[in-house]
Amino acid sequence: MSLNVLFAAHADRWGAYRAPLQDAFSALDLDVNLALDLPPAEVDYIIYAPNSPLQDFAPYTRAKAVLNLWAGVEGVTKNTTLTIPLARMVDPGMTKSMTEWVAGHVMRYHLGMDRHIVNPDHIWAPHTPPLASERSVCILGMGELGGAVAQVLGMLDFKLSGWSRRAKSVDGVVMHHGDMGLKDALSNAQIVVLLLPDTAQTENILNAESLGWLPKGAFIINPGRGPLIEDQALLEALDSGQVAQATLDVFRVEPLPQDHPFWTDPRVTVTPHIAAETREHTASQVIAQNVWRGEAGEPFLYLVDRDSGY
Amino acid sequence: MSLNVLFAAHADRWGAYRAPLQDAFSALDLDVNLALDLPPAEVDYIIYAPNSPLQDFAPYTRAKAVLNLWAGVEGVTKNTTLTIPLARMVDPGMTKSMTEWVAGHVMRYHLGMDRHIVNPDHIWAPHTPPLASERSVCILGMGELGGAVAQVLGMLDFKLSGWSRRAKSVDGVVMHHGDMGLKDALSNAQIVVLLLPDTAQTENILNAESLGWLPKGAFIINPGRGPLIEDQALLEALDSGQVAQATLDVFRVEPLPQDHPFWTDPRVTVTPHIAAETREHTASQVIAQNVWRGEAGEPFLYLVDRDSGY
Repeated sequence: MSLNVLFAAHADRWGAYRAPLQDAFSALDLDVNLALDLPPAEVDYIIYAPNSPLQDFAPYTRAKAVLNLWAGVEGVTKNTTLTIPLARMVDPGMTKSMTEWVAGHVMRYHLGMDRHIVNPDHIWAPHTPPLASERSVCILGMGELGGAVAQVLGMLDFKLSGWSRRAKSVDGVVMHHGDMGLKDALSNAQIVVLLLPDTAQTENILNAESLGWLPKGAFIINPGRGPLIEDQALLEALDSGQVAQATLDVFRVEPLPQDHPFWTDPRVTVTPHIAAETREHTASQVIAQNVWRGEAGEPFLYLVDRDSGY
Repeated sequence: MSLNVLFAAHADRWGAYRAPLQDAFSALDLDVNLALDLPPAEVDYIIYAPNSPLQDFAPYTRAKAVLNLWAGVEGVTKNTTLTIPLARMVDPGMTKSMTEWVAGHVMRYHLGMDRHIVNPDHIWAPHTPPLASERSVCILGMGELGGAVAQVLGMLDFKLSGWSRRAKSVDGVVMHHGDMGLKDALSNAQIVVLLLPDTAQTENILNAESLGWLPKGAFIINPGRGPLIEDQALLEALDSGQVAQATLDVFRVEPLPQDHPFWTDPRVTVTPHIAAETREHTASQVIAQNVWRGEAGEPFLYLVDRDSGY
């Protein structure tokens, strides 16, 4: 008997995902009826994205799990109609994409590239940046993505520190944790990378006070979540020189509204939420694996803890 | 009896090098009289840079070696008054500096960063670059620097090929060699990194014909030597779209003259010969080690083969 899998991520992704998902199900010998529309009571699994029109899970009485196509789940964790397991996406292609985007922008700030990319006065002024081994980078958020980013930046020889909500230990990274540890983590960070989830505890974690703990002239890189930064506090820190430059990939409202001051501040680089693009082929394999696990009675991978919100 | 070591690199480097050199000599228990000016017939070793005013080595009758502070020796290999051993600089700090600069600019082109760094119309247009594992980078010149760059780009997962004048094999790099191999090397290269020495054989190695072998829209990164590229051919390849962008750190004339078209071509990024800065501390250790070897009767490190020119 075939399994009914509803593709309830945004319909405009259907074209990109249909074939990779069917391939991934076939590769695991799963007989799947994958569709954009199915009678709710007959659905076995729901492939989901938080911006989907599906917001009431109550009619899906037979469904065994909701499998998110994205890493971020803040749009769905508070949905009280969702009572079955919810899995995040941990896509190896997406993780790779994130490590590359972060490594690129860390190198860009480390080397001071912008003064050459934008040099209208044709200034020839040699400068010697420190070596990576003399440059401190702090990663806020040391989950799957933060850990993968630390590994790549470590290979590039950067001096790494990290911060997480709860104590943890990571090879090659000086770790800090909790409210008390944040000041220590930031006070030596020449470059800060934000990879925290968006929760009530992490909202505005970079604010006027915590930005003040950074060494003067620090760089901020945010491929995590928009609400991690208090926008106005960042703009003021840029004005005062406390923060030299910031590259932001995520925002409270996306696309970033045209009248937002981030667009016009010359020290801010806006990128259009591209740091960690889910890759259809690898993400489809993760979805198929979780359906297989559900059918085999194995625990689902990457289950979301609804209380902590990630 | 103390050794007389003449600092004949440009005098403006004396301030930066004097203390690190003295420290490095002391660390090897060498009793050295290091000076900017010494009677030629009493000099034991000459610390040199090709742009030094010292061009006639004949009066230095007792000197045992000329120790270059830089990697490039093309300014001195043809000097017929130089009959004693000449050593290049292979500075671990400089090699690191080069690998970081190249990795940064390869990531920049790989990710397509410039469209976000310079985005006056505030365009929000997500794009997904391929992963590094799907991006081919070709390194022309697989000596110490090319090999070190290959290692870092390999850790970042790029698909690597390399080209050298003579056949050689390098782990994880598809190698090509000789005149016949150049076309194969370039024909799959989405990003080309030039790390060849400047010799009669390598001059203008990127010219109208060889640029035509690249896939359309390739990127050029030259931290090697200015004469490796035929400037006019590159400008034409940029005009036609055959080459998408180029980042150049070295030029036939430096500083790059203000009227050179590289300054105004929006697809060219000029950096002021900063990719591989010799680092005083590590370079001084290399110099001291070679003086120690000369006194101990050991062969010098990094001897230049005057015939091949590097």
